[in-house]
Amino acid sequence: MTVFLRTVPVEEAIRVGCSIAVPPGEETSPLADAVGRVLARDIIADVDIPGFDRSVVDGYAIRASDTVGAGEAIPAILTLAGTVKMGYPLEISLSDGECAYIPTGGELPGGADAVVMIEHSEAIDDQVLVKRPVASGENLIHRGEDFGKGKSAIMKGRRLSPPDIGVLAAVGCSVVPVYTIPRIGVISTGNELIPVKDSPSGSQIRDSNSVMLGAYLRAAGCEACLYGIVKDERDTLREILHRALDENDAVILSGGSSKDERDLCAELIAESGEVLVHGVAIAPGKPTIIGRAKGKPVLGLPGHPASALVVLDRIGRPLIAAMSGEIRRHECTRTAVLAQNIPSTRGREDYIRVRLDGKSAIPLFGKSGLLNTLVQSDGILRIPAGSEGLEKGAEVEVILW
Amino acid sequence: MTVFLRTVPVEEAIRVGCSIAVPPGEETSPLADAVGRVLARDIIADVDIPGFDRSVVDGYAIRASDTVGAGEAIPAILTLAGTVKMGYPLEISLSDGECAYIPTGGELPGGADAVVMIEHSEAIDDQVLVKRPVASGENLIHRGEDFGKGKSAIMKGRRLSPPDIGVLAAVGCSVVPVYTIPRIGVISTGNELIPVKDSPSGSQIRDSNSVMLGAYLRAAGCEACLYGIVKDERDTLREILHRALDENDAVILSGGSSKDERDLCAELIAESGEVLVHGVAIAPGKPTIIGRAKGKPVLGLPGHPASALVVLDRIGRPLIAAMSGEIRRHECTRTAVLAQNIPSTRGREDYIRVRLDGKSAIPLFGKSGLLNTLVQSDGILRIPAGSEGLEKGAEVEVILW
Repeated sequence: MTVFLRTVPVEEAIRVGCSIAVPPGEETSPLADAVGRVLARDIIADVDIPGFDRSVVDGYAIRASDTVGAGEAIPAILTLAGTVKMGYPLEISLSDGECAYIPTGGELPGGADAVVMIEHSEAIDDQVLVKRPVASGENLIHRGEDFGKGKSAIMKGRRLSPPDIGVLAAVGCSVVPVYTIPRIGVISTGNELIPVKDSPSGSQIRDSNSVMLGAYLRAAGCEACLYGIVKDERDTLREILHRALDENDAVILSGGSSKDERDLCAELIAESGEVLVHGVAIAPGKPTIIGRAKGKPVLGLPGHPASALVVLDRIGRPLIAAMSGEIRRHECTRTAVLAQNIPSTRGREDYIRVRLDGKSAIPLFGKSGLLNTLVQSDGILRIPAGSEGLEKGAEVEVILW
Repeated sequence: MTVFLRTVPVEEAIRVGCSIAVPPGEETSPLADAVGRVLARDIIADVDIPGFDRSVVDGYAIRASDTVGAGEAIPAILTLAGTVKMGYPLEISLSDGECAYIPTGGELPGGADAVVMIEHSEAIDDQVLVKRPVASGENLIHRGEDFGKGKSAIMKGRRLSPPDIGVLAAVGCSVVPVYTIPRIGVISTGNELIPVKDSPSGSQIRDSNSVMLGAYLRAAGCEACLYGIVKDERDTLREILHRALDENDAVILSGGSSKDERDLCAELIAESGEVLVHGVAIAPGKPTIIGRAKGKPVLGLPGHPASALVVLDRIGRPLIAAMSGEIRRHECTRTAVLAQNIPSTRGREDYIRVRLDGKSAIPLFGKSGLLNTLVQSDGILRIPAGSEGLEKGAEVEVILW
């Protein structure tokens, strides 16, 4: 182990992480609980949707041919033959010159081929004046037009959003095939750490990382299993690491801010597997470790909370997505105008915390070890490895926390 | 009740909704469960953070005055007086010409006033060569510099993100004062509706809205209580509405896609309170109702799932935020370039579903009643009431689902 880490680019770290992802299993979820879960199979529509020709407006079901040439001055005059009631069997079939009242969502009666909006008509007793010509099919959704029976409605690999849940309901998917939720163990290492409820004295600091990384993992759709604080002692750390590996699909170690501690983590990973990356060209977060132990991914994050969070989000997140079966994810970002120049070092990706003020992104400089920029910032800004910085006035994409 | 709704602008609907919000109560949450909750009180740092002058690098603690004039050619030569160990009491105090090894996060020993990075030094036995001048305070965070004891660390009204959880841990907030979670009742109305697990026949359709709106509410940090499908019968609907009002902080009715059903919902709200808005200048979603019954907000959404979701997100969400105690929220959006012209009607806000393809936003036109655009779309695009449309090539902000 050397003092200076041999760093790899961020993309390579991501690629390595994803290559060792343990793929998820499959289970089922009740539809009402499936939001945020990842769909494990393509879902097929079990019926035509809609199951009938359906009106999309409140109005009158008509025969389009009866309205040819109709206008404000010379309306078509139709006879009201009845009313379509939602959810009741149709009792009407239209003949030439007839119409029927139909509400939005109602089933088109036989004989009709279009609907005229109520705003373009006028009812006088049993007669309805239609004041414009209506085309065949107008204001209708045809049977099967939305989803055809037997056709794919939603593809697997999607993290289910509320609209997806609505569609699954429509196609009758009341029990949803989903991927299992990755279970991730979190271990905080460091002799200086004390539990949050204790008061620090001397050089002690509270363990922020356990709960913060746990919160991140849960928000990202994982189950987080916290193992608390482990001192930097080889045998203790080995024992907890092995337990965490046995009980989880992957393990995150945080801490090891000094070289000796980093080396200890790397050595323990190597004992039961291999260290694949030790050092990433990213700031903050250079001393990141990616390894595999007992066949499971182990991610070694820097000890400082801000650095740990940036690395987990930038490098750990794609690994989590792979372990969740998630195929495509839109990051939550905001476009803003940079309020100040940001210098950067070519050859590494820099992540700068920024605060949003309207359309303006204000970089929060200051010492790397500060926590207060975490609460002052709305997100982070990426400066690519090939760039020497970003200029004031540049349009930037802020990745929201 | 008239056929044509008297519509109000979207901003007025939002203002009316927020004005009748029932404010949340206060409770406590264990820190590990507090992510996504809204902070109910300002949190004060209980100690100085850090509690000691702390190194932000691996290196040597030194007296800056010993390095004046040092360079690669003529380094300052210091005597190694010891090593700072993480989490152990300091046993070293430096005199002139002395230094001590210090890891990242270590406590600065007495006598020292700066740290030189290990990369700018060279250790030879008991001597350390320092190859550049170091300023007093360099590579240090001073005691209390991050958060001063007694100073506010996080302000109330914030929905707690993972970084916030990290900061709460640092300031010792192991039990977090949070606002209570709004409990929202959801009722689907419509004679045509059947449960998701049933197969529709004739003019029946499955109830998508209950589970979809429930999923949205849960993702927005609410508790959703689903009352299922209620037929459009005055007495039944009144009974369920009253039960939902008694058991929740607010109620969402969806359905009533036809004029008669809308009028029934409005009449039942008016019976135990007042209808404040009946009709909003928004598409989709014009027949939206905002009222208050038994002192609680009631939101009447259109029956069609896509319309219901747009109105809940655009008009219901600010009401939910007010009932959650949330002060400021960044919507999850993406900036994109519009791939096609979108015409719009002046005088109402239009929301168009769009699919993202790289940097391109592709509008999903088609009939308003289709569900498939919900799964094909990544989000929605707002066209302000004052606009007659957006042009191809325009930079637009897509609100992600």
